[in-house]
Amino acid sequence: MLNPWSKNIKPTFIINKHRAVNNISAMLKKLNRTNTIFRPHFKTHQSAEVGNWFQKLGIQQISVSSVDMAWFFFQAGWKDISIVFPFNRREIARINTMSTNAQITILIEDMDTLEIVSKESTNNLGVFIKVDCGYQRTGIDVKNKEQILVLAQAISKSKTLSFKGILSHFGNTYHSRKPVEVAQIFRKGLSDMLNLKKYLTVQFPNISISLGDTPSASIINDFTGVDEMRPGNFVFYDWMQTEIGSCNTEQIAAIMICPVVAKHPERKELIIHGGAVHFSKEKGDQHYGAVCDISKGFSTQLIEGCSLKSLSQEHGIVSCSTAFLEKINIGDFIGIIPIHSCLTANLMNDQTQIID
Amino acid sequence: MLNPWSKNIKPTFIINKHRAVNNISAMLKKLNRTNTIFRPHFKTHQSAEVGNWFQKLGIQQISVSSVDMAWFFFQAGWKDISIVFPFNRREIARINTMSTNAQITILIEDMDTLEIVSKESTNNLGVFIKVDCGYQRTGIDVKNKEQILVLAQAISKSKTLSFKGILSHFGNTYHSRKPVEVAQIFRKGLSDMLNLKKYLTVQFPNISISLGDTPSASIINDFTGVDEMRPGNFVFYDWMQTEIGSCNTEQIAAIMICPVVAKHPERKELIIHGGAVHFSKEKGDQHYGAVCDISKGFSTQLIEGCSLKSLSQEHGIVSCSTAFLEKINIGDFIGIIPIHSCLTANLMNDQTQIID
Repeated sequence: MLNPWSKNIKPTFIINKHRAVNNISAMLKKLNRTNTIFRPHFKTHQSAEVGNWFQKLGIQQISVSSVDMAWFFFQAGWKDISIVFPFNRREIARINTMSTNAQITILIEDMDTLEIVSKESTNNLGVFIKVDCGYQRTGIDVKNKEQILVLAQAISKSKTLSFKGILSHFGNTYHSRKPVEVAQIFRKGLSDMLNLKKYLTVQFPNISISLGDTPSASIINDFTGVDEMRPGNFVFYDWMQTEIGSCNTEQIAAIMICPVVAKHPERKELIIHGGAVHFSKEKGDQHYGAVCDISKGFSTQLIEGCSLKSLSQEHGIVSCSTAFLEKINIGDFIGIIPIHSCLTANLMNDQTQIID
Repeated sequence: MLNPWSKNIKPTFIINKHRAVNNISAMLKKLNRTNTIFRPHFKTHQSAEVGNWFQKLGIQQISVSSVDMAWFFFQAGWKDISIVFPFNRREIARINTMSTNAQITILIEDMDTLEIVSKESTNNLGVFIKVDCGYQRTGIDVKNKEQILVLAQAISKSKTLSFKGILSHFGNTYHSRKPVEVAQIFRKGLSDMLNLKKYLTVQFPNISISLGDTPSASIINDFTGVDEMRPGNFVFYDWMQTEIGSCNTEQIAAIMICPVVAKHPERKELIIHGGAVHFSKEKGDQHYGAVCDISKGFSTQLIEGCSLKSLSQEHGIVSCSTAFLEKINIGDFIGIIPIHSCLTANLMNDQTQIID
């Protein structure tokens, strides 16, 4: 049998296009059933080419998490970009450049930032108010209806700003390890958002609810009441999502392949070129990555008893079963399912290979 | 008072040149006392400009941890580069290119890789044997003298390879939180390396001992018996090194500055633009970064009761004292001492600012 990785030289992030496109299509189909706008988060892949796969399926609206990323996709031709991160007032210049030629939407959660943006923005910007439904990262608490209303009124008075609605990220779903818990967090959060929307629609009848997070987007089937969904990670999924129960390993569309550079049979360990500068230091419940069988090409079939045990800057230590250790030689590549594909993709952006 | 960061826009890695040069000079002076070659590890800064500061102090020999990094510094004009990572046999092509015009040294720890390198290398390469003195990451156990001797003999028979000596990294010093323990690890390791050298010098009288790790390099004052030291992190230091006791905060030469994008007084928290894609996900003993007072410019003076509590991809949550929370407004920059400056510098490579 031919070695499928005989031409590879270095640690490489391998994207399986077929699986990624399937993940996108499945999400799109599900969201279409409730006419929920699909505004995928592009922070996961940060790739113009992967972006094209979305575009070919008819998707024209995207989310990003920084002005840098908005700029990248703006230059790649995207015309409707939401920057779903609390707006950094110091970055208004590039926002004004992009908004001459694209629909840019930002997040606001305080009056002071609103005043500055209102004064300094030169073209129309969409504005969502960031709302916190219990994750406690950022946003105005969903219960503070009056505070949100006052902010909405101030937004609506600005000449350049259009109040689009309320946006939340149920990031606490990431702490769950049971789909039923994810569903509970989603239903409670959505119920709170619907109450808030009802309260606001007296004055703002056309506003939307925008939600994110891959666990909810993957586990929930009925998005009635959600106007817009912004999952990102689902395009590749990763080991963390299997731990949560958002996906099975067959849906994982991106893995790392790393060359073995040393063997330590006495400790049943392999050393790979693949460290924190490749994977990131995100840890799963038990390890830094699951080992998968790439002997016949891309696959996410797990190899039992093997995992990425620790990471330093460039080295990875892989704990092995005796059987795997005997099969693998120095110079071979091994496959690792990353814990958090967003962070791995961010680091491997220029060392990526796409297979069909 | 003028705001020293009024022109900054985004998260930025700030390098204090004066401190970095002091760190380099102090290390050089200390190593000169025992005629120990100073071969700094450039994986920490990965910067041609910071490299120039070393060069101006007369340093011409460097260490790197990947062929990519060797290539970068080769192109920046460095002519004596050790790649102190188990050699990945698939990367021989660029090694052969660089070695036409530079002294390239690699690490070998197995006979199979040696045979391939010996066959495929086209110009002279220096070779160190990687030895493990208890860290248990990689290398041949220092006690396996015969195995090391056999490998050394095989290296010396190759036409293109020159056996340079034995190299170890006492990475277990990083697990220590007491300088006296670091010193013990160093002395035990050095003693084992000296025994091994003695055993090998019967046949190889001119070999060297090469050691690394910033904790040892910082805490130890007498390097008698060490032919070469390869510390890297010491150029910037970081919070982890203060935890180990390798440095005090006044020696830390690199910090992050991040814009505050939201305030949550009810939980005494600030949200900054500064996440895992800026800092890396390396965690210290208690947090992801220490907050320092940058109100008057670069400083590593700690602000009590404040630390970087958690990180997601782009967001950082900073736990604050009431006093700090009252002083800081949305739109201000705050300073954070990174846990691991090597990983932060790697991520911030193109968002760096050097101050004198």
